[in-house]
Amino acid sequence: MDCVMCGLANGVEPDAVYFADDDIVAVTPLRKMSRVHYVLLPREHIDDLPTLLRDHPKLAAKIMQRAAEIATERKIDATGYRLVWNFGPDTKQRIPHPHLHLLGGQRMTDTLA
Amino acid sequence: MDCVMCGLANGVEPDAVYFADDDIVAVTPLRKMSRVHYVLLPREHIDDLPTLLRDHPKLAAKIMQRAAEIATERKIDATGYRLVWNFGPDTKQRIPHPHLHLLGGQRMTDTLA
Repeated sequence: MDCVMCGLANGVEPDAVYFADDDIVAVTPLRKMSRVHYVLLPREHIDDLPTLLRDHPKLAAKIMQRAAEIATERKIDATGYRLVWNFGPDTKQRIPHPHLHLLGGQRMTDTLA
Repeated sequence: MDCVMCGLANGVEPDAVYFADDDIVAVTPLRKMSRVHYVLLPREHIDDLPTLLRDHPKLAAKIMQRAAEIATERKIDATGYRLVWNFGPDTKQRIPHPHLHLLGGQRMTDTLA
């Protein structure tokens, strides 16, 4: 299995999985960047973020909805959260299978780029 | 007009507008955080990001699709880009009307939170 995200989606690291349904898996990343940090991904392999947004807009929206619901579950919605999609070498993204970062539970930097 | 984003969507700063259609406006922010930086927002006032994601998922997806198209127009798609939604005080978000940051055109930090 070449794609790390496909591995996560198919149970290679079951302890990392916070939530899973037929379409989406949410995992705790190995390197947490904030007190609350999940990575949400489509279970099906999709080549990259532009492909997800162009060909699967409903799925992209569902992933973000699910992130907002997890923020509520984890009680970080009152203080706020950040949703980040990275794409391409300028973001040092190493795994092209699109995945959304949900970050919260602490004050965050102003730096977005 | 109380909401800055509604002001932008209704032509208060026409020079800032990069793109507009019936649903979405894309503007150059006053304080650019990367070489290429646009802010995309729904033209209609929506109270906050959770409301957008819960009640208007198609619009949320369309805003992100449009961001990916702008990235292609501005030729930053080969090197990559970052899409960021902020919500709430932990992100120092000052304007609740939901808006998506499209950032690119340079190497970006690893810091997401």
